[in-house]
Amino acid sequence: MITSPTNSTIKEIRRLRDRSARQASGLAYVEGIRQVIEAGKGQDVIERVVYCDTLLTSSLARDWLKQAQRSGTPVLEVNADVFSRLAMKESPVGLAAVVRQKWSALPGVLAPADVWVALDAIADPGNLGTILRTLDASAGMGVILLDASTDPYDPTSIRASMGAVFTKKLVRTTLPVFSDWIDRHRISLIGASDRGAQDYYNFPYPSPCVIMLGSERHGLSEAHLALCRQVVAIPMSGNCDSLNLAVAASLILYEIYNQRRLSGGAKE
Amino acid sequence: MITSPTNSTIKEIRRLRDRSARQASGLAYVEGIRQVIEAGKGQDVIERVVYCDTLLTSSLARDWLKQAQRSGTPVLEVNADVFSRLAMKESPVGLAAVVRQKWSALPGVLAPADVWVALDAIADPGNLGTILRTLDASAGMGVILLDASTDPYDPTSIRASMGAVFTKKLVRTTLPVFSDWIDRHRISLIGASDRGAQDYYNFPYPSPCVIMLGSERHGLSEAHLALCRQVVAIPMSGNCDSLNLAVAASLILYEIYNQRRLSGGAKE
Repeated sequence: MITSPTNSTIKEIRRLRDRSARQASGLAYVEGIRQVIEAGKGQDVIERVVYCDTLLTSSLARDWLKQAQRSGTPVLEVNADVFSRLAMKESPVGLAAVVRQKWSALPGVLAPADVWVALDAIADPGNLGTILRTLDASAGMGVILLDASTDPYDPTSIRASMGAVFTKKLVRTTLPVFSDWIDRHRISLIGASDRGAQDYYNFPYPSPCVIMLGSERHGLSEAHLALCRQVVAIPMSGNCDSLNLAVAASLILYEIYNQRRLSGGAKE
Repeated sequence: MITSPTNSTIKEIRRLRDRSARQASGLAYVEGIRQVIEAGKGQDVIERVVYCDTLLTSSLARDWLKQAQRSGTPVLEVNADVFSRLAMKESPVGLAAVVRQKWSALPGVLAPADVWVALDAIADPGNLGTILRTLDASAGMGVILLDASTDPYDPTSIRASMGAVFTKKLVRTTLPVFSDWIDRHRISLIGASDRGAQDYYNFPYPSPCVIMLGSERHGLSEAHLALCRQVVAIPMSGNCDSLNLAVAASLILYEIYNQRRLSGGAKE
Protein backbone atom coordinates (compact mmCIF):
# COMPACT_ATOMS: atom_id res chain seq x y z
CA MET A 1 0.00 0.00 0.00
CA ILE A 2 1.31 3.43 -0.94
CA THR A 3 1.18 5.87 1.95
CA SER A 4 3.38 8.66 0.65
CA PRO A 5 1.88 11.39 -1.54
CA THR A 6 5.36 12.03 -2.95
CA ASN A 7 5.60 8.46 -4.32
CA SER A 8 6.75 8.73 -7.93
CA THR A 9 3.84 6.67 -9.36
CA ILE A 10 1.36 8.90 -7.54
CA LYS A 11 3.07 12.00 -8.88
CA GLU A 12 2.95 10.56 -12.39
CA ILE A 13 -0.78 9.88 -12.09
CA ARG A 14 -1.40 13.40 -10.77
CA ARG A 15 0.38 14.81 -13.80
CA LEU A 16 -2.37 13.33 -16.01
CA ARG A 17 -4.46 16.37 -15.05
CA ASP A 18 -2.34 18.23 -17.60
CA ARG A 19 -3.10 17.80 -21.25
CA SER A 20 0.57 17.74 -22.17
CA ALA A 21 1.20 14.76 -19.85
CA ARG A 22 -1.86 12.97 -21.26
CA GLN A 23 -0.66 13.56 -24.80
CA ALA A 24 2.87 12.42 -24.09
CA SER A 25 1.75 9.20 -22.39
CA GLY A 26 -1.49 8.39 -24.23
CA LEU A 27 -3.05 7.84 -20.81
CA ALA A 28 -5.77 9.54 -18.77
CA TYR A 29 -7.03 9.58 -15.18
CA VAL A 30 -10.57 8.47 -14.38
CA GLU A 31 -12.30 8.83 -11.05
CA GLY A 32 -15.52 7.56 -9.52
CA ILE A 33 -17.31 4.24 -9.49
CA ARG A 34 -19.51 4.71 -12.54
CA GLN A 35 -16.73 6.11 -14.71
CA VAL A 36 -14.20 3.41 -13.76
CA ILE A 37 -16.73 0.62 -14.34
CA GLU A 38 -17.67 2.08 -17.74
CA ALA A 39 -13.98 2.30 -18.65
CA GLY A 40 -13.55 -1.33 -17.60
CA LYS A 41 -16.11 -2.46 -20.17
CA GLY A 42 -13.69 -1.68 -23.00
CA GLN A 43 -10.95 -4.02 -24.17
CA ASP A 44 -7.53 -3.13 -22.68
CA VAL A 45 -8.67 0.33 -21.57
CA ILE A 46 -7.66 0.18 -17.90
CA GLU A 47 -3.91 0.24 -17.30
CA ARG A 48 -4.10 0.31 -13.54
CA VAL A 49 -6.79 0.60 -10.88
CA VAL A 50 -6.15 2.82 -7.84
CA TYR A 51 -8.25 2.30 -4.74
CA CYS A 52 -8.42 3.16 -1.07
CA ASP A 53 -9.89 0.42 1.09
CA THR A 54 -11.20 2.73 3.83
CA LEU A 55 -12.92 5.08 1.37
CA LEU A 56 -14.39 2.40 -0.87
CA THR A 57 -17.67 1.47 0.84
CA SER A 58 -19.83 0.67 -2.21
CA SER A 59 -20.37 -3.09 -2.44
CA LEU A 60 -20.89 -2.78 -6.20
CA ALA A 61 -17.45 -1.18 -6.49
CA ARG A 62 -15.81 -3.72 -4.17
CA ASP A 63 -17.22 -6.61 -6.20
CA TRP A 64 -16.00 -4.98 -9.39
CA LEU A 65 -12.54 -4.48 -7.87
CA LYS A 66 -12.28 -8.17 -6.88
CA GLN A 67 -13.26 -9.17 -10.39
CA ALA A 68 -10.65 -6.81 -11.88
CA GLN A 69 -7.92 -8.24 -9.62
CA ARG A 70 -8.92 -11.79 -10.56
CA SER A 71 -8.71 -10.99 -14.26
CA GLY A 72 -5.17 -9.66 -13.84
CA THR A 73 -5.68 -5.89 -13.98
CA PRO A 74 -2.83 -4.17 -12.10
CA VAL A 75 -4.21 -2.72 -8.88
CA LEU A 76 -2.62 -0.12 -6.61
CA GLU A 77 -3.79 0.32 -3.04
CA VAL A 78 -3.23 3.73 -1.44
CA ASN A 79 -4.23 5.21 1.89
CA ALA A 80 -6.93 7.87 2.32
CA ASP A 81 -4.40 10.69 2.43
CA VAL A 82 -2.80 9.68 -0.87
CA PHE A 83 -6.18 9.09 -2.51
CA SER A 84 -7.36 12.56 -1.52
CA ARG A 85 -4.24 14.04 -3.11
CA LEU A 86 -5.04 12.24 -6.37
CA ALA A 87 -8.76 12.90 -6.30
CA MET A 88 -10.47 15.79 -8.11
CA LYS A 89 -13.75 15.33 -6.25
CA GLU A 90 -14.23 16.82 -2.81
CA SER A 91 -15.60 13.62 -1.29
CA PRO A 92 -13.70 10.88 -3.12
CA VAL A 93 -15.28 7.43 -3.16
CA GLY A 94 -11.99 5.53 -3.23
CA LEU A 95 -11.93 4.22 -6.80
CA ALA A 96 -9.94 5.61 -9.72
CA ALA A 97 -8.05 4.29 -12.72
CA VAL A 98 -5.37 5.12 -15.21
CA VAL A 99 -6.76 4.37 -18.66
CA ARG A 100 -5.31 4.13 -22.14
CA GLN A 101 -6.72 6.66 -24.61
CA LYS A 102 -8.46 5.15 -27.66
CA TRP A 103 -8.56 7.14 -30.87
CA SER A 104 -10.20 6.05 -34.12
CA ALA A 105 -9.41 6.96 -37.70
CA LEU A 106 -12.05 8.65 -39.84
CA PRO A 107 -14.37 5.79 -40.82
CA GLY A 108 -13.72 4.24 -44.22
CA VAL A 109 -17.34 3.18 -44.58
CA LEU A 110 -20.42 4.85 -43.16
CA ALA A 111 -23.62 2.89 -42.53
CA PRO A 112 -26.92 4.69 -43.27
CA ALA A 113 -27.76 4.90 -39.56
CA ASP A 114 -24.46 6.56 -38.61
CA VAL A 115 -24.57 9.97 -36.95
CA TRP A 116 -21.37 11.84 -36.17
CA VAL A 117 -20.70 15.25 -34.65
CA ALA A 118 -17.75 17.24 -35.98
CA LEU A 119 -16.58 19.99 -33.62
CA ASP A 120 -14.25 22.82 -34.50
CA ALA A 121 -12.36 24.58 -31.72
CA ILE A 122 -14.72 23.49 -28.94
CA ALA A 123 -13.12 25.00 -25.83
CA ASP A 124 -15.04 23.68 -22.82
CA PRO A 125 -14.33 20.06 -21.82
CA GLY A 126 -17.65 19.97 -19.91
CA ASN A 127 -19.48 20.74 -23.16
CA LEU A 128 -17.52 18.06 -25.01
CA GLY A 129 -18.31 15.45 -22.34
CA THR A 130 -22.00 16.43 -22.37
CA ILE A 131 -22.13 16.07 -26.17
CA LEU A 132 -20.60 12.57 -25.86
CA ARG A 133 -23.23 11.70 -23.25
CA THR A 134 -26.05 12.87 -25.54
CA LEU A 135 -24.47 11.01 -28.49
CA ASP A 136 -24.64 7.83 -26.45
CA ALA A 137 -28.29 8.41 -25.49
CA SER A 138 -29.27 9.23 -29.08
CA ALA A 139 -27.51 6.30 -30.82
CA GLY A 140 -24.75 8.45 -32.35
CA MET A 141 -21.36 7.06 -33.38
CA GLY A 142 -18.87 9.59 -32.07
CA VAL A 143 -17.13 12.93 -32.41
CA ILE A 144 -14.65 14.24 -34.95
CA LEU A 145 -12.47 16.88 -33.28
CA LEU A 146 -10.98 19.40 -35.66
CA ASP A 147 -7.76 21.29 -35.00
CA ALA A 148 -7.76 23.28 -31.77
CA SER A 149 -10.49 21.40 -29.91
CA THR A 150 -10.36 20.57 -26.21
CA ASP A 151 -9.39 17.09 -24.97
CA PRO A 152 -12.13 14.45 -24.43
CA TYR A 153 -9.78 12.89 -21.84
CA ASP A 154 -9.74 16.04 -19.73
CA PRO A 155 -11.09 14.98 -16.29
CA THR A 156 -14.02 17.43 -16.66
CA SER A 157 -14.96 15.93 -20.02
CA ILE A 158 -14.70 12.35 -18.72
CA ARG A 159 -16.94 13.22 -15.77
CA ALA A 160 -19.52 15.05 -17.92
CA SER A 161 -19.58 12.18 -20.43
CA MET A 162 -20.73 9.71 -17.71
CA GLY A 163 -18.59 7.05 -19.34
CA ALA A 164 -19.59 7.80 -22.94
CA VAL A 165 -15.98 8.83 -23.64
CA PHE A 166 -15.24 5.08 -23.47
CA THR A 167 -18.11 3.90 -25.65
CA LYS A 168 -18.26 6.50 -28.43
CA LYS A 169 -15.65 6.80 -31.17
CA LEU A 170 -13.16 9.67 -30.90
CA VAL A 171 -11.44 11.00 -34.02
CA ARG A 172 -9.05 13.93 -34.23
CA THR A 173 -7.99 15.37 -37.52
CA THR A 174 -7.28 18.56 -39.42
CA LEU A 175 -9.61 20.59 -41.60
CA PRO A 176 -7.90 19.58 -44.91
CA VAL A 177 -8.06 15.85 -44.07
CA PHE A 178 -11.67 16.19 -42.90
CA SER A 179 -12.56 18.12 -46.04
CA ASP A 180 -11.02 15.38 -48.26
CA TRP A 181 -12.94 12.73 -46.32
CA ILE A 182 -16.24 14.60 -46.79
CA ASP A 183 -15.58 14.87 -50.54
CA ARG A 184 -14.41 11.30 -51.02
CA HIS A 185 -17.42 9.78 -49.29
CA ARG A 186 -19.86 12.34 -50.75
CA ILE A 187 -21.09 13.08 -47.24
CA SER A 188 -23.88 15.64 -46.89
CA LEU A 189 -22.25 17.66 -44.13
CA ILE A 190 -24.86 19.65 -42.17
CA GLY A 191 -23.62 22.75 -40.37
CA ALA A 192 -25.30 24.24 -37.31
CA SER A 193 -25.06 28.01 -37.09
CA ASP A 194 -27.26 30.94 -36.20
CA ARG A 195 -26.69 32.02 -39.80
CA GLY A 196 -28.30 28.81 -41.10
CA ALA A 197 -31.13 29.12 -43.62
CA GLN A 198 -32.98 25.96 -42.55
CA ASP A 199 -34.96 25.35 -39.37
CA TYR A 200 -33.29 22.47 -37.47
CA TYR A 201 -36.73 21.11 -36.51
CA ASN A 202 -38.37 18.82 -39.07
CA PHE A 203 -35.29 19.25 -41.29
CA PRO A 204 -34.78 16.16 -43.51
CA TYR A 205 -31.44 15.00 -42.10
CA PRO A 206 -29.53 12.75 -44.51
CA SER A 207 -28.46 9.16 -43.69
CA PRO A 208 -25.62 8.85 -42.81
CA CYS A 209 -25.33 12.24 -41.17
CA VAL A 210 -22.41 14.38 -40.03
CA ILE A 211 -23.35 17.51 -38.08
CA MET A 212 -20.71 20.24 -37.63
CA LEU A 213 -20.69 22.86 -34.89
CA GLY A 214 -18.17 25.61 -34.17
CA SER A 215 -16.69 27.03 -30.99
CA GLU A 216 -18.62 28.42 -28.02
CA ARG A 217 -17.51 31.97 -28.78
CA HIS A 218 -17.40 32.18 -32.55
CA GLY A 219 -19.52 29.38 -34.01
CA LEU A 220 -18.59 28.06 -37.45
CA SER A 221 -16.13 30.08 -39.54
CA GLU A 222 -16.65 30.87 -43.23
CA ALA A 223 -14.14 28.14 -44.14
CA HIS A 224 -16.18 25.57 -42.25
CA LEU A 225 -19.54 26.80 -43.53
CA ALA A 226 -18.21 26.48 -47.09
CA LEU A 227 -17.85 22.70 -46.58
CA CYS A 228 -21.51 22.26 -45.59
CA ARG A 229 -24.18 21.00 -47.97
CA GLN A 230 -26.80 22.77 -45.84
CA VAL A 231 -26.80 24.81 -42.64
CA VAL A 232 -29.50 24.53 -39.99
CA ALA A 233 -30.32 27.10 -37.30
CA ILE A 234 -32.12 26.72 -33.99
CA PRO A 235 -34.70 29.51 -33.76
CA MET A 236 -34.46 31.61 -30.61
CA SER A 237 -36.52 34.22 -28.89
CA GLY A 238 -35.39 36.28 -25.91
CA ASN A 239 -32.64 38.66 -24.92
CA CYS A 240 -29.55 36.54 -24.79
CA ASP A 241 -30.13 35.02 -28.18
CA SER A 242 -27.82 32.10 -27.70
CA LEU A 243 -27.74 28.54 -26.43
CA ASN A 244 -25.09 26.56 -24.65
CA LEU A 245 -23.07 24.62 -27.27
CA ALA A 246 -23.83 21.20 -25.73
CA VAL A 247 -27.54 22.10 -25.60
CA ALA A 248 -27.51 23.16 -29.27
CA ALA A 249 -25.75 19.92 -30.31
CA SER A 250 -28.16 17.88 -28.18
CA LEU A 251 -31.25 19.51 -29.72
CA ILE A 252 -30.05 18.57 -33.20
CA LEU A 253 -28.94 15.04 -32.21
CA TYR A 254 -32.30 14.36 -30.61
CA GLU A 255 -34.19 15.77 -33.58
CA ILE A 256 -32.37 13.25 -35.80
CA TYR A 257 -32.92 10.45 -33.28
CA ASN A 258 -36.63 11.27 -32.90
CA GLN A 259 -37.22 11.38 -36.63
CA ARG A 260 -35.53 8.03 -37.12
CA ARG A 261 -37.08 6.15 -34.22
CA LEU A 262 -40.56 7.38 -35.14
CA SER A 263 -40.26 6.71 -38.86
CA GLY A 264 -38.80 3.28 -38.16
CA GLY A 265 -36.35 4.24 -40.88
CA ALA A 266 -32.59 4.41 -40.66
CA LYS A 267 -32.53 3.49 -36.99
CA GLU A 268 -30.54 0.34 -36.29
CA MET B 1 -9.04 54.06 -6.53
CA ILE B 2 -8.71 51.06 -4.24
CA THR B 3 -5.23 49.54 -4.36
CA SER B 4 -5.35 47.27 -1.31
CA PRO B 5 -6.76 43.76 -1.59
CA THR B 6 -7.47 43.86 2.14
CA ASN B 7 -9.81 46.86 1.78
CA SER B 8 -13.02 46.03 3.67
CA THR B 9 -15.34 46.68 0.70
CA ILE B 10 -13.26 44.36 -1.46
CA LYS B 11 -13.35 41.67 1.21
CA GLU B 12 -17.13 42.04 1.46
CA ILE B 13 -17.52 41.64 -2.31
CA ARG B 14 -15.28 38.57 -2.29
CA ARG B 15 -17.49 37.01 0.37
CA LEU B 16 -20.37 37.00 -2.14
CA ARG B 17 -18.79 33.83 -3.55
CA ASP B 18 -20.37 32.08 -0.56
CA ARG B 19 -24.05 31.32 -0.64
CA SER B 20 -24.48 32.25 3.02
CA ALA B 21 -23.11 35.75 2.39
CA ARG B 22 -25.38 36.13 -0.66
CA GLN B 23 -28.40 35.05 1.35
CA ALA B 24 -27.62 37.34 4.26
CA SER B 25 -27.13 40.38 2.05
CA GLY B 26 -29.53 39.68 -0.84
CA LEU B 27 -26.65 40.61 -3.15
CA ALA B 28 -24.56 38.76 -5.73
CA TYR B 29 -21.32 39.25 -7.66
CA VAL B 30 -21.37 39.43 -11.44
CA GLU B 31 -18.33 39.43 -13.69
CA GLY B 32 -17.68 40.03 -17.36
CA ILE B 33 -18.89 42.55 -19.89
CA ARG B 34 -21.91 40.68 -21.21
CA GLN B 35 -23.18 39.67 -17.78
CA VAL B 36 -22.78 43.15 -16.27
CA ILE B 37 -24.50 44.81 -19.24
CA GLU B 38 -27.38 42.31 -19.05
CA ALA B 39 -27.72 42.99 -15.32
CA GLY B 40 -27.79 46.72 -16.04
CA LYS B 41 -30.88 46.33 -18.21
CA GLY B 42 -32.99 45.59 -15.13
CA GLN B 43 -34.47 48.28 -12.87
CA ASP B 44 -32.34 48.86 -9.74
CA VAL B 45 -30.39 45.64 -10.18
CA ILE B 46 -26.85 47.04 -10.03
CA GLU B 47 -25.77 48.24 -6.60
CA ARG B 48 -22.24 49.07 -7.56
CA VAL B 49 -19.97 48.70 -10.57
CA VAL B 50 -16.36 47.64 -10.03
CA TYR B 51 -13.86 48.29 -12.79
CA CYS B 52 -10.16 48.38 -13.50
CA ASP B 53 -9.12 51.01 -16.03
CA THR B 54 -6.00 49.20 -17.25
CA LEU B 55 -7.83 45.89 -17.80
CA LEU B 56 -10.96 47.35 -19.39
CA THR B 57 -10.04 47.68 -23.06
CA SER B 58 -13.43 46.97 -24.68
CA SER B 59 -14.88 50.20 -26.08
CA LEU B 60 -18.40 48.79 -25.71
CA ALA B 61 -17.74 48.28 -22.00
CA ARG B 62 -16.11 51.70 -21.56
CA ASP B 63 -19.10 53.41 -23.18
CA TRP B 64 -21.47 51.44 -20.97
CA LEU B 65 -19.43 52.42 -17.89
CA LYS B 66 -19.58 56.15 -18.75
CA GLN B 67 -23.33 55.86 -19.20
CA ALA B 68 -23.69 54.09 -15.85
CA GLN B 69 -21.65 56.80 -14.10
CA ARG B 70 -23.76 59.53 -15.72
CA SER B 71 -26.97 57.89 -14.55
CA GLY B 72 -25.71 57.84 -10.95
CA THR B 73 -24.74 54.19 -10.47
CA PRO B 74 -22.07 53.95 -7.75
CA VAL B 75 -18.77 53.03 -9.37
CA LEU B 76 -15.64 51.70 -7.68
CA GLU B 77 -12.28 51.87 -9.42
CA VAL B 78 -9.67 49.32 -8.39
CA ASN B 79 -6.19 48.52 -9.64
CA ALA B 80 -5.32 45.38 -11.61
CA ASP B 81 -4.03 43.56 -8.54
CA VAL B 82 -7.24 44.11 -6.59
CA PHE B 83 -9.40 43.22 -9.60
CA SER B 84 -7.55 39.93 -10.06
CA ARG B 85 -8.22 39.09 -6.43
CA LEU B 86 -11.94 39.66 -6.93
CA ALA B 87 -12.15 37.96 -10.31
CA MET B 88 -13.20 34.33 -10.80
CA LYS B 89 -11.99 34.26 -14.42
CA GLU B 90 -8.37 33.63 -15.24
CA SER B 91 -8.09 36.56 -17.64
CA PRO B 92 -10.40 39.17 -16.14
CA VAL B 93 -11.69 41.85 -18.49
CA GLY B 94 -11.91 44.56 -15.85
CA LEU B 95 -15.68 44.88 -15.37
CA ALA B 96 -17.77 43.45 -12.54
CA ALA B 97 -20.75 44.47 -10.45
CA VAL B 98 -22.50 43.87 -7.18
CA VAL B 99 -26.16 43.25 -7.98
CA ARG B 100 -29.34 42.99 -5.94
CA GLN B 101 -31.07 39.62 -6.15
CA LYS B 102 -34.62 39.70 -7.54
CA TRP B 103 -37.07 37.02 -6.48
CA SER B 104 -40.66 36.72 -7.64
CA ALA B 105 -43.68 35.21 -5.92
CA LEU B 106 -45.51 32.30 -7.54
CA PRO B 107 -47.60 33.99 -10.24
CA GLY B 108 -51.23 34.72 -9.33
CA VAL B 109 -52.32 34.52 -12.93
CA LEU B 110 -50.86 32.44 -15.74
CA ALA B 111 -51.26 33.43 -19.39
CA PRO B 112 -51.83 30.60 -21.87
CA ALA B 113 -48.38 31.08 -23.39
CA ASP B 114 -46.56 30.80 -20.05
CA VAL B 115 -43.97 28.06 -19.66
CA TRP B 116 -42.26 27.51 -16.31
CA VAL B 117 -39.69 24.97 -15.13
CA ALA B 118 -39.97 23.69 -11.56
CA LEU B 119 -36.77 22.13 -10.24
CA ASP B 120 -36.43 20.00 -7.15
CA ALA B 121 -33.04 19.66 -5.50
CA ILE B 122 -31.05 20.66 -8.59
CA ALA B 123 -27.45 20.55 -7.35
CA ASP B 124 -25.25 21.95 -10.11
CA PRO B 125 -25.32 25.74 -10.57
CA GLY B 126 -23.96 25.32 -14.11
CA ASN B 127 -27.02 23.23 -14.98
CA LEU B 128 -29.35 25.82 -13.42
CA GLY B 129 -27.72 28.65 -15.38
CA THR B 130 -27.90 26.63 -18.61
CA ILE B 131 -31.62 25.97 -18.04
CA LEU B 132 -32.19 29.71 -17.54
CA ARG B 133 -30.32 30.39 -20.79
CA THR B 134 -32.49 27.87 -22.69
CA LEU B 135 -35.64 29.30 -21.06
CA ASP B 136 -34.70 32.70 -22.44
CA ALA B 137 -34.08 31.30 -25.93
CA SER B 138 -37.35 29.34 -25.92
CA ALA B 139 -39.67 32.11 -24.65
CA GLY B 140 -40.11 30.58 -21.16
CA MET B 141 -41.07 32.63 -18.09
CA GLY B 142 -38.76 31.38 -15.37
CA VAL B 143 -37.84 28.75 -12.80
CA ILE B 144 -39.52 27.65 -9.60
CA LEU B 145 -36.88 26.31 -7.21
CA LEU B 146 -38.16 23.83 -4.67
CA ASP B 147 -36.56 23.25 -1.30
CA ALA B 148 -32.90 22.23 -1.48
CA SER B 149 -32.05 23.61 -4.91
CA THR B 150 -28.81 25.36 -5.78
CA ASP B 151 -28.58 29.15 -5.99
CA PRO B 152 -29.21 30.88 -9.35
CA TYR B 153 -26.94 33.69 -8.07
CA ASP B 154 -23.98 31.35 -7.68
CA PRO B 155 -21.24 32.80 -9.93
CA THR B 156 -21.20 29.58 -12.00
CA SER B 157 -24.96 29.82 -12.58
CA ILE B 158 -24.78 33.50 -13.50
CA ARG B 159 -22.01 32.80 -16.00
CA ALA B 160 -23.81 29.79 -17.54
CA SER B 161 -27.06 31.77 -17.81
CA MET B 162 -25.38 34.37 -20.07
CA GLY B 163 -27.47 37.05 -18.39
CA ALA B 164 -30.78 35.14 -18.40
CA VAL B 165 -30.67 35.09 -14.58
CA PHE B 166 -31.55 38.80 -14.85
CA THR B 167 -34.33 38.48 -17.42
CA LYS B 168 -36.19 35.32 -16.33
CA LYS B 169 -38.35 35.14 -13.21
CA LEU B 170 -36.91 33.32 -10.19
CA VAL B 171 -39.23 31.81 -7.59
CA ARG B 172 -38.22 29.80 -4.54
CA THR B 173 -40.75 27.95 -2.49
CA THR B 174 -41.50 24.75 -0.61
CA LEU B 175 -43.23 21.62 -1.85
CA PRO B 176 -46.45 22.23 0.19
CA VAL B 177 -46.80 25.81 -1.08
CA PHE B 178 -46.05 24.73 -4.63
CA SER B 179 -48.55 21.88 -4.35
CA ASP B 180 -51.28 24.30 -3.12
CA TRP B 181 -50.50 26.64 -6.00
CA ILE B 182 -50.79 23.81 -8.56
CA ASP B 183 -54.18 22.81 -7.08
CA ARG B 184 -55.57 26.32 -6.78
CA HIS B 185 -54.76 27.24 -10.37
CA ARG B 186 -55.66 23.77 -11.72
CA ILE B 187 -52.27 23.64 -13.43
CA SER B 188 -51.53 20.54 -15.49
CA LEU B 189 -48.11 19.87 -14.01
CA ILE B 190 -45.98 17.76 -16.38
CA GLY B 191 -43.19 15.74 -14.79
CA ALA B 192 -40.06 14.66 -16.64
CA SER B 193 -38.67 11.33 -15.50
CA ASP B 194 -37.21 8.18 -17.02
CA ARG B 195 -40.22 6.45 -15.47
CA GLY B 196 -42.63 8.59 -17.52
CA ALA B 197 -45.26 6.80 -19.60
CA GLN B 198 -45.46 9.43 -22.37
CA ASP B 199 -42.89 10.19 -25.06
CA TYR B 200 -41.76 13.82 -24.61
CA TYR B 201 -41.69 14.28 -28.41
CA ASN B 202 -45.02 15.22 -30.00
CA PHE B 203 -46.60 15.19 -26.53
CA PRO B 204 -49.57 17.63 -26.35
CA TYR B 205 -48.16 20.04 -23.77
CA PRO B 206 -50.88 22.09 -22.04
CA SER B 207 -51.08 25.90 -22.11
CA PRO B 208 -49.96 27.27 -19.69
CA CYS B 209 -47.35 24.68 -18.91
CA VAL B 210 -45.26 23.89 -15.84
CA ILE B 211 -42.57 21.22 -16.34
CA MET B 212 -41.00 19.63 -13.26
CA LEU B 213 -37.59 17.92 -13.13
CA GLY B 214 -35.76 16.34 -10.21
CA SER B 215 -32.15 16.29 -9.12
CA GLU B 216 -29.17 15.19 -11.21
CA ARG B 217 -28.67 12.06 -9.10
CA HIS B 218 -32.16 10.94 -8.16
CA GLY B 219 -34.65 12.49 -10.57
CA LEU B 220 -38.18 13.14 -9.31
CA SER B 221 -39.23 11.50 -6.04
CA GLU B 222 -42.53 9.67 -5.56
CA ALA B 223 -43.91 12.69 -3.68
CA HIS B 224 -43.15 14.92 -6.67
CA LEU B 225 -44.41 12.45 -9.26
CA ALA B 226 -47.70 12.24 -7.36
CA LEU B 227 -48.32 15.94 -8.07
CA CYS B 228 -47.99 15.51 -11.84
CA ARG B 229 -50.95 15.23 -14.19
CA GLN B 230 -48.74 13.37 -16.66
CA VAL B 231 -45.10 12.33 -16.81
CA VAL B 232 -43.03 12.43 -19.97
CA ALA B 233 -39.81 10.51 -20.66
CA ILE B 234 -37.02 11.16 -23.14
CA PRO B 235 -36.30 7.87 -24.92
CA MET B 236 -32.64 6.82 -24.81
CA SER B 237 -30.50 4.22 -26.44
CA GLY B 238 -26.92 3.42 -25.47
CA ASN B 239 -24.91 2.33 -22.48
CA CYS B 240 -25.04 5.24 -20.10
CA ASP B 241 -28.79 5.61 -20.37
CA SER B 242 -28.91 9.12 -19.02
CA LEU B 243 -28.79 12.73 -20.11
CA ASN B 244 -27.36 15.81 -18.48
CA LEU B 245 -30.18 17.55 -16.54
CA ALA B 246 -29.86 20.84 -18.44
CA VAL B 247 -29.92 18.93 -21.74
CA ALA B 248 -33.07 17.03 -20.67
CA ALA B 249 -34.81 20.27 -19.62
CA SER B 250 -33.71 21.96 -22.86
CA LEU B 251 -35.06 19.14 -25.05
CA ILE B 252 -38.50 19.47 -23.43
CA LEU B 253 -38.50 23.29 -23.46
CA TYR B 254 -37.61 23.31 -27.15
CA GLU B 255 -40.23 20.69 -27.97
CA ILE B 256 -42.86 22.99 -26.42
CA TYR B 257 -41.40 26.05 -28.17
CA ASN B 258 -41.24 24.26 -31.54
CA GLN B 259 -44.83 23.02 -31.30
CA ARG B 260 -46.09 26.51 -30.46
CA ARG B 261 -44.11 28.50 -32.98
CA LEU B 262 -45.04 26.08 -35.79
CA SER B 263 -48.73 25.83 -34.92
CA GLY B 264 -48.91 29.62 -34.56
CA GLY B 265 -50.84 28.81 -31.42
CA ALA B 266 -50.09 29.84 -27.88
CA LYS B 267 -46.90 31.66 -28.83
CA GLU B 268 -46.98 35.34 -27.98
